[in-house]
Amino acid sequence: MKRKEKLEYADLTHILSPKSVAVIGATENPAKVGHAIMQNYIDVGFQGSVYPINIGAQGKIMGFQAYKSILDVKKPIDLAVIAIPAEFVSATIGQCAKAQVKGIVIVTSGFAEVGNQKLENALNKALSKIKIPTIGPNCLGVMDPRARNDTLFLPTYKIDRPKVGGVSFASQSGSVGSSILDLISAEGFGLSKFISYGNASMVDEVDVLNYLAHDKDTKVILYYLEGVKRGRQFIEAAKTATKLKPVVIIKGGITAQGAGAAHSHTASLAGSHEAYEAVFKQYGFITGDSLEDLLYFGKVFDTQPLTDGNRIAVLTNGGGHGVLATDAIYANGLALAEMSKRSERALRAAMPPIVNIRMPFDMSGEANATSYSKALEVLGDDPGVDAFMVIALFQTPGADENLVTTLIKFSEQKKKPMVVVSTGSAYTKSHTALMEASGVPVYDSPTAAARSLAALINYSRYKNGVEE
Amino acid sequence: MKRKEKLEYADLTHILSPKSVAVIGATENPAKVGHAIMQNYIDVGFQGSVYPINIGAQGKIMGFQAYKSILDVKKPIDLAVIAIPAEFVSATIGQCAKAQVKGIVIVTSGFAEVGNQKLENALNKALSKIKIPTIGPNCLGVMDPRARNDTLFLPTYKIDRPKVGGVSFASQSGSVGSSILDLISAEGFGLSKFISYGNASMVDEVDVLNYLAHDKDTKVILYYLEGVKRGRQFIEAAKTATKLKPVVIIKGGITAQGAGAAHSHTASLAGSHEAYEAVFKQYGFITGDSLEDLLYFGKVFDTQPLTDGNRIAVLTNGGGHGVLATDAIYANGLALAEMSKRSERALRAAMPPIVNIRMPFDMSGEANATSYSKALEVLGDDPGVDAFMVIALFQTPGADENLVTTLIKFSEQKKKPMVVVSTGSAYTKSHTALMEASGVPVYDSPTAAARSLAALINYSRYKNGVEE
Repeated sequence: MKRKEKLEYADLTHILSPKSVAVIGATENPAKVGHAIMQNYIDVGFQGSVYPINIGAQGKIMGFQAYKSILDVKKPIDLAVIAIPAEFVSATIGQCAKAQVKGIVIVTSGFAEVGNQKLENALNKALSKIKIPTIGPNCLGVMDPRARNDTLFLPTYKIDRPKVGGVSFASQSGSVGSSILDLISAEGFGLSKFISYGNASMVDEVDVLNYLAHDKDTKVILYYLEGVKRGRQFIEAAKTATKLKPVVIIKGGITAQGAGAAHSHTASLAGSHEAYEAVFKQYGFITGDSLEDLLYFGKVFDTQPLTDGNRIAVLTNGGGHGVLATDAIYANGLALAEMSKRSERALRAAMPPIVNIRMPFDMSGEANATSYSKALEVLGDDPGVDAFMVIALFQTPGADENLVTTLIKFSEQKKKPMVVVSTGSAYTKSHTALMEASGVPVYDSPTAAARSLAALINYSRYKNGVEE
Repeated sequence: MKRKEKLEYADLTHILSPKSVAVIGATENPAKVGHAIMQNYIDVGFQGSVYPINIGAQGKIMGFQAYKSILDVKKPIDLAVIAIPAEFVSATIGQCAKAQVKGIVIVTSGFAEVGNQKLENALNKALSKIKIPTIGPNCLGVMDPRARNDTLFLPTYKIDRPKVGGVSFASQSGSVGSSILDLISAEGFGLSKFISYGNASMVDEVDVLNYLAHDKDTKVILYYLEGVKRGRQFIEAAKTATKLKPVVIIKGGITAQGAGAAHSHTASLAGSHEAYEAVFKQYGFITGDSLEDLLYFGKVFDTQPLTDGNRIAVLTNGGGHGVLATDAIYANGLALAEMSKRSERALRAAMPPIVNIRMPFDMSGEANATSYSKALEVLGDDPGVDAFMVIALFQTPGADENLVTTLIKFSEQKKKPMVVVSTGSAYTKSHTALMEASGVPVYDSPTAAARSLAALINYSRYKNGVEE
């Protein structure tokens, strides 16, 4: 097609929140992708109409009236999900157009990514004749928990589904997509949209970025990207997106060898790492070094207010963690906050004599919820403090569920950004899970926490045009 | 004392595996440190004699015959654990000497670390008169699961205790010590010795490093260090230690501000970061960037054979992870392995046509235990492969408990080093826990896995004198 004749970018609304879905390749055979997708629509409680399509269909499939062809349905269809062998996909595209579907997801693989350029060309030709937004091929498709829409064909018991929230995640790669989605569920922050777009034959990184930038339910965009086909348009999309909301990006194929692997994987032209880095920086993307960063940065942007200031108050009940926090703060271009005289007096009056009143503020292993509460109250009002790194080590006698409550309460005020560091296993995790579920971002180490705070502050400065 | 008159370094044997222990400050009051330590000896099933000492003692304390003074015991005492207020510690040291104890742990804090230099000086004076190895003050003390010895005064329900194993962990900081100990338990690798030595008034980093280097039960040393007081001797100890076994070190106080915090914390003189880095590199320490690295590197050294070769075979069931693995491998100075023609033929014959026979070896989301088993068999015998990074994403249909068994079996052969990457939550974690418990090091991301492989290979080259 002559792309973007009318739209600046593909409208993915009907793909993400369809009122009716045709599953082409639906089957009772549980070994098939078409079965897994049908099962999903049942499991997530999709509220719209579901039309299973299978050339050999007779009667019902998985309890739904089945059709031999999408043309037999003769009712409005928002989304067609195509899960049939690669050689039959192109022909089906035309039928979808004739049935006037409003969006298509092709999950089928076996195109350019395995060297089958001929099939990919045929698909591109078929897509060039239609004006329907189409995602794929070679992808997982989409998930929108609000719309109870889910085209993923992975067994539901193997991958946790996130709750509804403000984080959207786009991934060229299905494996990165599904595993990070699984972790997002575990971290306790909610999902707005998930889009895995594979070979990007039509809908590509430009469309996805533009759509998520303008999606009112998306507060933060996480992005795993292997390559960009439309460079100029991507830059335009980036400029707009990063002014509207934070975009955290992990780029696959940053080494020459990795770029080669990316080409084989999603038929991506990865381009030079330096060129990407320069663009990412210039247009305010938040770049991560590893998959962990998607989660680390994602949760701070999802939950904490922005700030341009880099003066961090560190509260701790363990001295070593205070030392490591200080190192990590300065290593990431931040600084320790200096307390006002007023704060010093208030804290001196409130703390036992053994506690030194200085930054990092080490309240000793005896500290309890009351100590933290007092420190947060005093330093929360101190104009010299821009943000908090609160280290709460639950191995100590004074740290318990009251401390969890204190930290959640402070976080709910949204007074100043706060990240929490709690290193530990079973007892600790049972407490951090409560905080995570209540919108307090918790990290295993001061390093991860400082990196995340730095991401927040640097983005805030970019957005507000503050010189670093 | 004139230290080291007879010993090259302090002998910590009686401190770590005592046959009898006096707990000075033992009490029925559960709010006190002396109570927590007594409770530990009960909980861990210590097999030797326990003597509670309390100046107000009458009859029994927590079921054990109590004494007003250690001098009243009149039986051989290997270890005295001192948990009384700081102002009474110095006087007690002399009594311990008179009672001919063979080792002392002072857990009490309130000395130089809180600016109480006078008390610290008095303690140093008392210690100068004895020749008994003494750990502390301001520390957690020691744990030796083999000897069922445990002086930690943290509530046992708040911190998991590791099983018996080959990893020893030394930490100047109690908070870093206890939280990492907690994580070590969760990661499923076993502990040989834990030593937290705080202000290091007598036993210091040189003694600890020397002792662990020569301890036959210690296979890997993990070290959180804030400062070194005896530089020349530390370098001598390092030279010896790193020739015997891997030493993974995290240094607190690497920034000027962090060093200031370290001084306040354990009264450490942190010294210049550059000087430390140079020494660490020259003498074969494995340096980590964050607390996570202690665990990441610790488990690869604990379980995998060394290799000087850096040609890594990547097996994956997810393309995006293959791309990220390739990036991480080259970013860490490693390289992808090239398959022999023989391997290519064998794999071509064994794999479905959709699978490209090249590195990274992406067996697609359809891969199952049989695919992995075949690939490990073929490439395990390929002389062009030095080590494996096996990416096993359990969200895919083919990855299940059979794959876990396959990976454990290959790992048990100890043919070539292998690290596994599995990103995910509940279903994934239930499978990775089985692998971890069976000595397979598993990582959340290709980045962490590649860093750990690089640490293994770089140490191997240092040990074998191979030029990089």
